[in-house]
Amino acid sequence: METKKVFLSQREIPRRWYNIAADMPNPVQPPLHPGTGQPIGPDDLAAIFPMNLIAQEVSTDRWIDIPEEVLEKLLIWRPTPLTRAYQLEKYLGTPAKIYFKDESVSPAGSHKPNTALAQAYYNKVFGVKRITTETGAGQWGSSLALACHLFGLELKVYMVRISFEQKPYRKSLMRTWGAECVPSPSPDTSFGRKILAENPDTPGSLGIAISEAIEDTLTSKDTRYSLGSVLNHVMLHQTIIGLEALKQFELVGDYPDIVIGCVGGGSNFSGLSFPFVRDKIYGKELRIIAVEPAACPTLTKGSFLYDFGDTAETTPLLPMHTLGHSFIPRPFHAGGLRYHGMAPLVCQLFLDNLIEAQTYNQLQTYEAGIAFARSEGIVPAPETSHAIAAVIYEALKCKEEGVSRTILFNLSGHGLLDLSGYESFLDGKLTDYEMPEEEVREALKKLEGYPKPRR
Amino acid sequence: METKKVFLSQREIPRRWYNIAADMPNPVQPPLHPGTGQPIGPDDLAAIFPMNLIAQEVSTDRWIDIPEEVLEKLLIWRPTPLTRAYQLEKYLGTPAKIYFKDESVSPAGSHKPNTALAQAYYNKVFGVKRITTETGAGQWGSSLALACHLFGLELKVYMVRISFEQKPYRKSLMRTWGAECVPSPSPDTSFGRKILAENPDTPGSLGIAISEAIEDTLTSKDTRYSLGSVLNHVMLHQTIIGLEALKQFELVGDYPDIVIGCVGGGSNFSGLSFPFVRDKIYGKELRIIAVEPAACPTLTKGSFLYDFGDTAETTPLLPMHTLGHSFIPRPFHAGGLRYHGMAPLVCQLFLDNLIEAQTYNQLQTYEAGIAFARSEGIVPAPETSHAIAAVIYEALKCKEEGVSRTILFNLSGHGLLDLSGYESFLDGKLTDYEMPEEEVREALKKLEGYPKPRR
Repeated sequence: METKKVFLSQREIPRRWYNIAADMPNPVQPPLHPGTGQPIGPDDLAAIFPMNLIAQEVSTDRWIDIPEEVLEKLLIWRPTPLTRAYQLEKYLGTPAKIYFKDESVSPAGSHKPNTALAQAYYNKVFGVKRITTETGAGQWGSSLALACHLFGLELKVYMVRISFEQKPYRKSLMRTWGAECVPSPSPDTSFGRKILAENPDTPGSLGIAISEAIEDTLTSKDTRYSLGSVLNHVMLHQTIIGLEALKQFELVGDYPDIVIGCVGGGSNFSGLSFPFVRDKIYGKELRIIAVEPAACPTLTKGSFLYDFGDTAETTPLLPMHTLGHSFIPRPFHAGGLRYHGMAPLVCQLFLDNLIEAQTYNQLQTYEAGIAFARSEGIVPAPETSHAIAAVIYEALKCKEEGVSRTILFNLSGHGLLDLSGYESFLDGKLTDYEMPEEEVREALKKLEGYPKPRR
Repeated sequence: METKKVFLSQREIPRRWYNIAADMPNPVQPPLHPGTGQPIGPDDLAAIFPMNLIAQEVSTDRWIDIPEEVLEKLLIWRPTPLTRAYQLEKYLGTPAKIYFKDESVSPAGSHKPNTALAQAYYNKVFGVKRITTETGAGQWGSSLALACHLFGLELKVYMVRISFEQKPYRKSLMRTWGAECVPSPSPDTSFGRKILAENPDTPGSLGIAISEAIEDTLTSKDTRYSLGSVLNHVMLHQTIIGLEALKQFELVGDYPDIVIGCVGGGSNFSGLSFPFVRDKIYGKELRIIAVEPAACPTLTKGSFLYDFGDTAETTPLLPMHTLGHSFIPRPFHAGGLRYHGMAPLVCQLFLDNLIEAQTYNQLQTYEAGIAFARSEGIVPAPETSHAIAAVIYEALKCKEEGVSRTILFNLSGHGLLDLSGYESFLDGKLTDYEMPEEEVREALKKLEGYPKPRR
């Protein structure tokens, strides 16, 4: 009987987050003010975020202590296991050793609570009483609902209306954890009312929901806004994943040749990989692969430009690979990967050849998800299945070449609240959609005139 | 920072199941043949179950080795953590120490795969190629789907039609794990066709589904039937829960004063408690509490009689506390607790005063579930919330009396696929229903003339 899982005791939980800004060969460029075109300072963000999180956003300290109060609540599910996927290896007949970091064991079912807890805490100590946010499929909204309740903060979630209606369980989860969740556009903001007046039947969009959440923040007392991906401090809070994985690999006496994660805004990928990117910067040889959907190929086909983070043009301009803030990806089931941009930190590392990118089509990812569920038991989230598709590709390459490599990926979430996608796949109702070159060109044309960051 | 979870390494997983038959002061009475009224022998069951499981059903060996092939697959999620519920203690302001064994971390989200894996394995080595079963809410069917796929067996699940329609996610989960799932009554059996002809719009029932699954088994090649609770071998396979808990308590240097689990057929309760019942038999002082719904109060209000295990009268007569096999409990959300009978092993221990029973009403259990979700993060299954209601009652009693007791309960499953119940509760749409005395008397009247087991 071979041991499959490596547990860390709770005493071994990392006490500090790792800030990759301290080690990057080229720093990330600062965000710009859309009006002046000048780099924004901390004060420009103070109406939206608490100052302690803004300080983290711009920090270049290598290690940042995790507050005791946050650690205590991370212990609800952390450290997460590092698991060897023996059954998947056997199914593939590969000489590769496949490991995954299991972030699906959190109460919300994904890695998102890692930053939700930290953000709720910093808002709390800054004196904020109430938080607003947007959510698409609901993973982020539910994670923040849990975190806000644990720290005694109110939360209002603007949930894209089509998801609000199609994914009632995520909404129920937010309510169970004590948050208010409304479909967006809502009659609760002037922007929402405007949209509703123009188009009462609109399905909503992430862009609209962000605008409503920010308007709510700017017009309410003791309220701040919270974002679940893209920003530097979010990536920072997620590095606990990779720091645990490093300790766990030490315990089994192994080290990955390939590290893999799916990317939407970039947070689960960054969380697992940044501590390994650091090793690479200092000379370790390994490959680090960000996996994106063929229907939203930000890193592989987007331009590196200053672009807005949201559709409604309310955020600062961020230096990132983007398909344009007005680009709306075709509907596919991995809702968490339907983002036009990418975390600036991930983009800079991509430019510096420290990480690479791959794309997979929807059907490939569902085949991978089913293969994983039927060998390893856990049903992966559709987002996570993108990472698994890449794992299978690399493991089969090992088989072809007759080489054993150690592959690590982030099981960023389970799919128990996404089973309708599996049902459609099993019924043969899902299709592929690869964004064609002319559509990419057209999307990028809208970005002409946007400032180019220094490389 | 206090450690919250006790993990065992996978090398510490128990290698043997504990069979309480070896230590009971009074043995459980044998099942009777409904035709002859005589005790049935192993051969009477051979058409339905494989002989190796029948041997376990009647074994009095204290320890039974867990086969390596089963252990290997249990390692997909075991050992499960023992978790200290600090935040719940704090919320209640109780001096009690509350621990829970977290069975929600299995891929199916409950304790059910513990026996599903073992049953699939024993069927496999006996040469069975295909299994049939019934499922109500879907927890059992999905767990067996996973187990059958891992051991290369076909599975057909007859799912109560109303649940099939109302809980599409459970059905999707079974399909994702490769099982066939049909709504019952189905046109696939003669019993199903008969019911459909009489009443095309019937919502179905567990009794009908069992009858279809057994008919399928009896009329198909290389096929056997599998049951997820009630029988002795099922309780046996679940004892790994309590055996792990004993090791974990040793590690923290504590021992429970009270052990609590909810009971429907009895399997999660038995799995956690039997190793502690053994200690009690040999002189340890502790209380062991089985918790049932007020709408289906089998232990607290039923008669101890020989009764059928199913509505269609196809099983042997089992010695158990029962509300009568034709009793259909009012609909409530804890579908796993809507069973008219109880595991004979649990009943015998109850008669011998080794365990006690408590009932809670639906609203109390949802209040408890919400309190738990908002303090400890994990959203419990509605069944599990019955155990939590008892935990809260006992913890508040500790507070009143100013005494610290150590309470252990089984977090038998999470509620991520049961969120519609939470939604109804939060909307104020749930009601209580306590089975009135006259209804109990009427249900029990139907059992007149059924044989009485020796006490």
